[in-house]
Amino acid sequence: MAKPRSSNARTKLRTKAPSAAPRISAADKPLKIGLLGFGTVGRSVAKILCQGPNGPLLLTHVFNRNIKKKKTDSLPAHIRWTENIHEVLRSDVDVVVELIGGTKPAGDWVRRALRAGKSVVTANKLLISESGPELAVLARKMGRRIEFGASVAGGIPAIIGIQEGLAGDRLYRIAGILNGTCNYILTRMESSGSSFVSALKEAQDLGFAEADPSSDVDGIDARAKLVILTQAGLGLQVRSEQIPCRSITSITSADFMYARELDCSIRQISLAEKAVVPGPPRCVRLAAAVQPALIPAESLMAHAQGSQNIVTAAGEFSGRSVFSGYGAGGDPTAVAVVSDLYAIARSAGAPAAALPKTAETPNEVSGDFTVPHYLRFVVQDRPGIVASLAAILAKYDISIDALLQKPGFPHSALPFVMTLESCDSAVLQRALEEISRLDFHVEPPLCLPVFSD
Amino acid sequence: MAKPRSSNARTKLRTKAPSAAPRISAADKPLKIGLLGFGTVGRSVAKILCQGPNGPLLLTHVFNRNIKKKKTDSLPAHIRWTENIHEVLRSDVDVVVELIGGTKPAGDWVRRALRAGKSVVTANKLLISESGPELAVLARKMGRRIEFGASVAGGIPAIIGIQEGLAGDRLYRIAGILNGTCNYILTRMESSGSSFVSALKEAQDLGFAEADPSSDVDGIDARAKLVILTQAGLGLQVRSEQIPCRSITSITSADFMYARELDCSIRQISLAEKAVVPGPPRCVRLAAAVQPALIPAESLMAHAQGSQNIVTAAGEFSGRSVFSGYGAGGDPTAVAVVSDLYAIARSAGAPAAALPKTAETPNEVSGDFTVPHYLRFVVQDRPGIVASLAAILAKYDISIDALLQKPGFPHSALPFVMTLESCDSAVLQRALEEISRLDFHVEPPLCLPVFSD
Repeated sequence: MAKPRSSNARTKLRTKAPSAAPRISAADKPLKIGLLGFGTVGRSVAKILCQGPNGPLLLTHVFNRNIKKKKTDSLPAHIRWTENIHEVLRSDVDVVVELIGGTKPAGDWVRRALRAGKSVVTANKLLISESGPELAVLARKMGRRIEFGASVAGGIPAIIGIQEGLAGDRLYRIAGILNGTCNYILTRMESSGSSFVSALKEAQDLGFAEADPSSDVDGIDARAKLVILTQAGLGLQVRSEQIPCRSITSITSADFMYARELDCSIRQISLAEKAVVPGPPRCVRLAAAVQPALIPAESLMAHAQGSQNIVTAAGEFSGRSVFSGYGAGGDPTAVAVVSDLYAIARSAGAPAAALPKTAETPNEVSGDFTVPHYLRFVVQDRPGIVASLAAILAKYDISIDALLQKPGFPHSALPFVMTLESCDSAVLQRALEEISRLDFHVEPPLCLPVFSD
Repeated sequence: MAKPRSSNARTKLRTKAPSAAPRISAADKPLKIGLLGFGTVGRSVAKILCQGPNGPLLLTHVFNRNIKKKKTDSLPAHIRWTENIHEVLRSDVDVVVELIGGTKPAGDWVRRALRAGKSVVTANKLLISESGPELAVLARKMGRRIEFGASVAGGIPAIIGIQEGLAGDRLYRIAGILNGTCNYILTRMESSGSSFVSALKEAQDLGFAEADPSSDVDGIDARAKLVILTQAGLGLQVRSEQIPCRSITSITSADFMYARELDCSIRQISLAEKAVVPGPPRCVRLAAAVQPALIPAESLMAHAQGSQNIVTAAGEFSGRSVFSGYGAGGDPTAVAVVSDLYAIARSAGAPAAALPKTAETPNEVSGDFTVPHYLRFVVQDRPGIVASLAAILAKYDISIDALLQKPGFPHSALPFVMTLESCDSAVLQRALEEISRLDFHVEPPLCLPVFSD
């Protein structure tokens, strides 16, 4: 069948990447920048700052360990390279860009930079998820700013979009695909039929996954980002450890086969929903979790391919807004860092707006959602299995929607699937504990929620 | 086949829409707001401002003609209702929200408000596309701000996302679906097989299209938005009349039939691409147009359903970022207006950043793209038609990719389709002028570009 060849609609005129129009006139006093960390993102930030016109942004210091190995001639000679953090913190830089990661010593350095009267730009999701509100208060007290657009979803302007672009709405739901490694692994399993282990290996070989992938695949990385988005979008302060995570490691190729049968995909979904019971006393409840979930194939989230990220926000007035793009990698993350530097350059003296001044602490936090569910069992086949499962589910008032069993599997380890009508995941969990005690399981049952857009 | 019922993952806890956490403490001096225009958007803005906590935002004046018919008891009694524009402009309001539309008298009122030392928030795409840079200069001169997030894509934070969230990148391409009316009509034609006329009628009955839909269907509305996005994202000042528009009125149900055969959709696409030829002399070229186009069914743009909007931005470093959601309607547009009011409240004294300080004027502007094309002919069938078409195309060095002819049409008015390999649309236009002079056409040939994401 004839299909026009896919091609980018680039004009024939385009001969090279255009340089940016300077956003802020060069006559403005330059903003002196000290960079902490010269890894992948740090190098991209330096490249963007030193290439082409960048108006008021002037890189003056680069800090890294073992600077001899890091130093490159491609950056201007005026830049001071140092292994001594104090040299940067005591210098005249206006902004410290923290790209070290982790909370120690990065958190101390960020605090010291703020106390020294410098603004801070950071891509550190762990630090911001733990200490974002505290650091925002400190920045405000010092009349400086802390910006962290790069801490969530790299090059996608999700935080500014949600926090400022949708400031006029009352958001109640944030959902997204916040970890590119998991999305790469799951989309590869989906497209190639490969196992989790071989998709992970492939991701590691391509540099999309680390040697120890547990922070990604177990949801820890995405959870820190969900904490930040929950603060930014829902105005709720929550601690990471309050949000349950479930790993994607138990997803098998059989699950993708059944998901396709159900016209669904499987993705690692981070979801936070706010509910307010008007008082008195007023009660704010948050349901939040990071977990693998079924999503309809036609949903926008199913279209985040490979290492892409997507963030959706639902509001009382604006409906659902979607932000998507490349959530990781040196260059996209560097764009977020440099955009934050521009924000600081523009703001000159305006109060920090990076976090809502007042964020509530929810009265209740759970990981429970009332949604349809997907259950996959692997059993030693024998008569009566479905009857015993159905009896337990009925006891908990949970309705079975459908039963799926694909041919071609051995009776000794037979996978089959049940889909359930909408039910509370906490109630289902109790039923599953009872079900798990039945003696026909070859491996523990897998339970996935089904989330719609 | 069993398919889990589509349902929103709302927690069972959610009993009512949560109220927003106040973003800015109520102790701040309130920002007094005068609203010009109490139509659909104006009423939504007033509702959001007067419902629930809105920190520093205080609606004090509402201006509209025939105020007796408009006045509602649902707003607080302190609000001053007036039919006299001078009363608002001479009052102590800090911000004027202009929701009148059009350039006269709205433009004069906006200028007078700025000169009176008030900031301005507007949803007026026509005014901003014509006079945005001039008004930004005036606002800056007065130490005030003009914000226009609502002028493009309503509730989608596209302008702030592109202009501030991606400030650190060098964007070279903006593409989008910027007109909800056209998208509603085209998605209806696609899903129901209905004609343009009946889909338009349906859109009018549902309030998605105006009695005179020409500004929407001919691309005039989307073009004003593309001008604004071109300024905000590409840093280029261009006049609306420099950007060619083509109407969607000539799209037929046969086109959708053929598009499906090609695994494509048809949408009204607004596209602007910047190319820089480094000098000296440096030459900046812009290719921009608003027109119906084929887009692959798997592209994100094909997923904007009904009245939704989508904006994509491609940058040198961040790759492609996507913003989508509800681009029109009272509530989503009001969210953009109120978000702009929050931005002004937060900025207190910071310089206006709504437009890049320096926007270049491109040296060349055209509507030409080098992409694959779709040609649909309706002919009185006879031997030799394809040969004569192919001869003319060959003369212009244009290669045919495929020929499609579906059965079931009369020989007296036979539609068939050619897809062409990537070629310059200006060259193709010259070939089509020659082709149009052939005598077998029952109606003029339709030519659509094929755009990929």
